[in-house]
Amino acid sequence: MALIVQKYGGTSVGDLDRIRNVAERIARTRDQGNDVVVILSAMSGVTDQLISMAEKIHTPPDAREMDVLLATGEQTTVSLMAMTLQAMGYKARSMLGYQAEILTDNRYTKARILDIGAERIKSLLAEGQIVVVAGFQGMDASGDITTLGRGGSDTSAVAVAAGLKADRCEIYTDVDGIYTADPNICGKARKLSRISYDEMLEMASLGAKVLQIRSVEFAKKYDVPIHVRSSFNQEEGTMVVHEDANMEKVVVSGVTQSKNESRITLRKVPDQPGIASRILTPVAEAGISVDMIIQNTRLSNMTDLTFTVPKSDFDASMAVEKKVAEEIGAAEVLGDENIAKVSVIGVGMRSHSGVASKMFAALAAENINILMISTSEIRISCVIEEKYTELAVRALHTAFDLDSQ
Amino acid sequence: MALIVQKYGGTSVGDLDRIRNVAERIARTRDQGNDVVVILSAMSGVTDQLISMAEKIHTPPDAREMDVLLATGEQTTVSLMAMTLQAMGYKARSMLGYQAEILTDNRYTKARILDIGAERIKSLLAEGQIVVVAGFQGMDASGDITTLGRGGSDTSAVAVAAGLKADRCEIYTDVDGIYTADPNICGKARKLSRISYDEMLEMASLGAKVLQIRSVEFAKKYDVPIHVRSSFNQEEGTMVVHEDANMEKVVVSGVTQSKNESRITLRKVPDQPGIASRILTPVAEAGISVDMIIQNTRLSNMTDLTFTVPKSDFDASMAVEKKVAEEIGAAEVLGDENIAKVSVIGVGMRSHSGVASKMFAALAAENINILMISTSEIRISCVIEEKYTELAVRALHTAFDLDSQ
Repeated sequence: MALIVQKYGGTSVGDLDRIRNVAERIARTRDQGNDVVVILSAMSGVTDQLISMAEKIHTPPDAREMDVLLATGEQTTVSLMAMTLQAMGYKARSMLGYQAEILTDNRYTKARILDIGAERIKSLLAEGQIVVVAGFQGMDASGDITTLGRGGSDTSAVAVAAGLKADRCEIYTDVDGIYTADPNICGKARKLSRISYDEMLEMASLGAKVLQIRSVEFAKKYDVPIHVRSSFNQEEGTMVVHEDANMEKVVVSGVTQSKNESRITLRKVPDQPGIASRILTPVAEAGISVDMIIQNTRLSNMTDLTFTVPKSDFDASMAVEKKVAEEIGAAEVLGDENIAKVSVIGVGMRSHSGVASKMFAALAAENINILMISTSEIRISCVIEEKYTELAVRALHTAFDLDSQ
Repeated sequence: MALIVQKYGGTSVGDLDRIRNVAERIARTRDQGNDVVVILSAMSGVTDQLISMAEKIHTPPDAREMDVLLATGEQTTVSLMAMTLQAMGYKARSMLGYQAEILTDNRYTKARILDIGAERIKSLLAEGQIVVVAGFQGMDASGDITTLGRGGSDTSAVAVAAGLKADRCEIYTDVDGIYTADPNICGKARKLSRISYDEMLEMASLGAKVLQIRSVEFAKKYDVPIHVRSSFNQEEGTMVVHEDANMEKVVVSGVTQSKNESRITLRKVPDQPGIASRILTPVAEAGISVDMIIQNTRLSNMTDLTFTVPKSDFDASMAVEKKVAEEIGAAEVLGDENIAKVSVIGVGMRSHSGVASKMFAALAAENINILMISTSEIRISCVIEEKYTELAVRALHTAFDLDSQ
């Protein structure tokens, strides 16, 4: 008998029929003799509807009130799920964020979990109840409702699993698991049976949309194994776990791509100490996060500085830099939205050399020009022209022996 | 500067435009220098939608989970209202039942308010906030959400007003106030400027649907003056207050009717001590409330016993009594669903005599036969054939000088 936390996303609880299907899956887990805690999202689409209603009133709506409004979405699904389980003859109880003692800071709409007081859940489990907890929501120290940001139910699930010291945390979603590449782009992509937390963090931040990044950080910190799997079939999905010796044998675990990048170049900048800071600080002050930065030294005390920002911040960044260019006497500001970032990821890189050169060679073989490069301990990313994205992903997938037979 | 509690019902907050209209009314009250606490219902129709969704799962749905589900309705309106007030430049904060410390017993779906801890509302008022409280909902001692039953937001409003010792409690609804009779039946009905709590209690239980009965009991107990008025115009409505000398000059304040009655007669019952109890206890045990009871003594140790029950409980009551009739040897059980109850109400009855005979004469003048009679200190009710209901109301309205010019 184990204690299992299961999280179901919005499409899995999208209507009463789907809630019934999920309830049957929960019941099976219970019938096998396990204690079960269920974390639910709002019905798919509901959160967006509520946001658009609020934005008709005022943009942006007050964040505290937004959280009060958004929290109704999960409140609805947990009560309906508890009723459904009861109708099937099971003991079940819903718990809202404040009742489950999910304590957060008070950064409304993007709060972070500080603590889980799992006592109330534990005592309900001891009564034989299936406990159905509203995901995505918590309570701050003054008793106000907070929400955890998009995908926050994943983090709720991992946090509750950590608080309860659960044996497993299962994240049910509308995909089968984590793939070596996006199957829509790369037909030979394979489902991974295991992936390390660190790889998953790199994958999540680079465009794989399966798990909220923070949930993975939380799982790593509190050593919670996550099982990502589909709520529409019974197949095993992907385990997200601490890295082990076996994983290190594989050089690259996955290839990702992101088209949400854009780049800005300031040409012929006077090459003085502190000039990079004068160029980049105004962008940071506008709340825009810069990803890669490259500085090319030129002749005659002039340099070019290039950096990337999210595509959604491109216009704002260009406006900022045009002002900066005038102030510092740069020749011109060039912008490019037609770029993409492809990355290879794997904990095996720590113990294998030659990964970068293999990557560059694979791209060169397809005549794909590399515009920028950045690396971490377990990742190499290249910025390329956007039109080559899919070709690059497939080429790298093959080059690193990831293709399925 | 006064402390004013305003309650707006579901039709008044039925969509974003209406919420905006209500917000403007709240803002005016605030601009006049008052502290304002607002109590809101769910958008009209929402509560019924939620109930019907839950009933698709199981009938009846679990009461605790029902309350979790239903509470989302008011949670939505209070957050939208707070956002709207903020968009207009006012400081505003929503409060859910548990945040406003509305403590109830744990009779889910029909909980009673035990206590209001008004400290949090008071401290928000001290900050200059307009406080927008979710009506209809509270919290029991273990932190679970409870709801107060249909019309419960009225009781929330009066309870909060009592807890805050507010100067006024204004109940905004879709009617102008309390009328001397139902204007749909009696064209000459007039709006009352004042009515006593006791009269209002008799009116509410006899079919006027303006205020939840419990809110009036609460207002009477804690001496909260209620102003019932329309949210669609600026006119003064009706004050519900303690009775005063002026009210006693008027013999009858209003005429009401109810078609929700049915009656059951057991004929030729052996006239033994305890026989009424043997007939009525099984009905009570079935959870059905009996209103009027009449026993006609007949010759030869036989009696007829007649009582009324709500029409919705008629079939169940007939089934119970057929069994009882067999056990006690009654001759037959007769049922009649085509009856109505008309009543005249007024605190003036305490000091005036002849009200009953005037009522009987007025009905007799229209050839309306009286089937049963019951009275309280400030009310006389007659059961008549249902088809005469409207005629009876108009005749009594005229007889007691209530007609408008």
